[in-house]
Amino acid sequence: MRLVTYELPTPLGRVRRSGALSDADDAVIDLALARTALLARRGLPHAAALAAVETPVDMLALLGTGEHGIEAAREAVEAAVAEGVEQLGDGAVVRHAPGSVRLLAPVPRPNSLRDFLVVEEHVRRARRGREIPPEWFEMPVHYKGNVDAVYGPEDLVPWPAYTDRLDYELEVCAVVGKAGRRIAAADAPTHIVGYTIYNDWSARDIQRREMTVGLGPAMGKDFATSLGPCLVTADAFDRDAARMTARVDGETWSSGGLGTMRFSFEEIIEWVSQEQTLLPGDHLGSGTVGGGCGLELDRWIAEGSVVELEVDGIGVLRNRVGRRGAGPEPAAGL
Amino acid sequence: MRLVTYELPTPLGRVRRSGALSDADDAVIDLALARTALLARRGLPHAAALAAVETPVDMLALLGTGEHGIEAAREAVEAAVAEGVEQLGDGAVVRHAPGSVRLLAPVPRPNSLRDFLVVEEHVRRARRGREIPPEWFEMPVHYKGNVDAVYGPEDLVPWPAYTDRLDYELEVCAVVGKAGRRIAAADAPTHIVGYTIYNDWSARDIQRREMTVGLGPAMGKDFATSLGPCLVTADAFDRDAARMTARVDGETWSSGGLGTMRFSFEEIIEWVSQEQTLLPGDHLGSGTVGGGCGLELDRWIAEGSVVELEVDGIGVLRNRVGRRGAGPEPAAGL
Repeated sequence: MRLVTYELPTPLGRVRRSGALSDADDAVIDLALARTALLARRGLPHAAALAAVETPVDMLALLGTGEHGIEAAREAVEAAVAEGVEQLGDGAVVRHAPGSVRLLAPVPRPNSLRDFLVVEEHVRRARRGREIPPEWFEMPVHYKGNVDAVYGPEDLVPWPAYTDRLDYELEVCAVVGKAGRRIAAADAPTHIVGYTIYNDWSARDIQRREMTVGLGPAMGKDFATSLGPCLVTADAFDRDAARMTARVDGETWSSGGLGTMRFSFEEIIEWVSQEQTLLPGDHLGSGTVGGGCGLELDRWIAEGSVVELEVDGIGVLRNRVGRRGAGPEPAAGL
Repeated sequence: MRLVTYELPTPLGRVRRSGALSDADDAVIDLALARTALLARRGLPHAAALAAVETPVDMLALLGTGEHGIEAAREAVEAAVAEGVEQLGDGAVVRHAPGSVRLLAPVPRPNSLRDFLVVEEHVRRARRGREIPPEWFEMPVHYKGNVDAVYGPEDLVPWPAYTDRLDYELEVCAVVGKAGRRIAAADAPTHIVGYTIYNDWSARDIQRREMTVGLGPAMGKDFATSLGPCLVTADAFDRDAARMTARVDGETWSSGGLGTMRFSFEEIIEWVSQEQTLLPGDHLGSGTVGGGCGLELDRWIAEGSVVELEVDGIGVLRNRVGRRGAGPEPAAGL
């Protein structure tokens, strides 16, 4: 199942809803309304109220319901698609035609963003000859991103006034769907609800200066992270085989896969959860795959460039970057 | 005004409420109930419903109301204290005797934790002779803490199984009370609602290894941050004069003040808000004051040690550390 958060204009203002993309044509099926249709057909008079609890309209709340909510959503979406449900009796729209609604990041405000650095080729190339410290081989290190600067597919990503060297990073992240502490790697798969594409936008000049001090990075990263277009559930994602590609203005700059992670997502979960609780909506980034950013290639995007990250089974996360210093678009709601 | 979040046992379970400490005796005045009393006396039949919106019971929501909520709270608390209001007609307790309720961190889950490193003496001593990189003098660098591992006053702080070198850090943080982007330092004071004490617990051995790679720190910090005991509003805190002290098992180990920050909180706000939006509940840590941690002194706390951080005008943030590897107490709700 490919879960999404979509935005819908209504006479009462814009609303955000949880949905799923239909396998056949990428139509957006509203989860709570599909669930309402299913429960009403079973004769439950309080179908809408039950559906709102079983399959919450907020994606973070849905993840908080664990496998109960995911399975309820799956059952409802499959029924709606099988039976061709288009809308409810009061005019509520269950199925939105492909491309007719705006997709946001699957979790518009993640519970956390932890981004790891676990692909040796990326580290080696990004360090440009400086030796990799032995600590890198011993444990998965990470920094935390800014959950209040998340962009979705097709959003304009602002180019910070303070950087000459804006860059993309081609990554996938695992999304936690069940809380846990001291999770063994063998048990970790049950804590991963699914995966999405993670573009860890980077301002390389200031990032380099920050990392000299040894903290962060912060300003080098915190202006934007883009996520999407969907959160594919773990059962529907062939993680080891998925090809990953980055295109800039239509030209392929990067390609790779997740096969070269020094630490797997499961090992990362075991490591991080030793002395802290992982929670639904925590996003664990793989770090950049080998060759997966302009820094490694010494190629640089320009104002107005369109960056597309594509991952088999997840889709294309496409963003244009803005004019330097112009800030985010008002429509982004920031 | 000294704002707090307190926890109250009820026959319907524990609840968390926003409150303020009375100046006279540190009694906890419930904000929404004090506001209800005030509005009811003005003849408003929907006093409780209005109070719930004007002075939310959740501290993060209260901060989201900006100066409106803070001023409504101030007016209500002053009236309740002046008139000796103890409870409402239905038995709701407005005033809790000093020490009779548990205080949590003022904002139990901060919108974010950004911890800066801006006191030269701390940097110099912690680096033990290694030169300070020039970048440190040019900009306020920081890392982000874990908002899901926050402890309040009197909480037991877990000693991670993976560290031999647990340490405290004596800090104050400014708390953002008004959203903003591209905030000039001159305008920054209107964005700071107040201050609290920030103990940036650190596992020095793993922190050192993480910082060798240049990301984070993460595991060196993310197991615990303690905050409290109150959020003192900016008008009631003499930031430049406040003495700061750290005691371990009753013995003073550290003392200092905020006068030696290379970048002020206002300059930090200007810097960080260049290309990201600061939001209510964002916590901006000063970083450790000179001599404000065991690392600088080469003195180390032990299992069971009691660490007290005291700051004039805020109070004492006291925590005992647990047995190595024992994890948090179930009561901590983690």
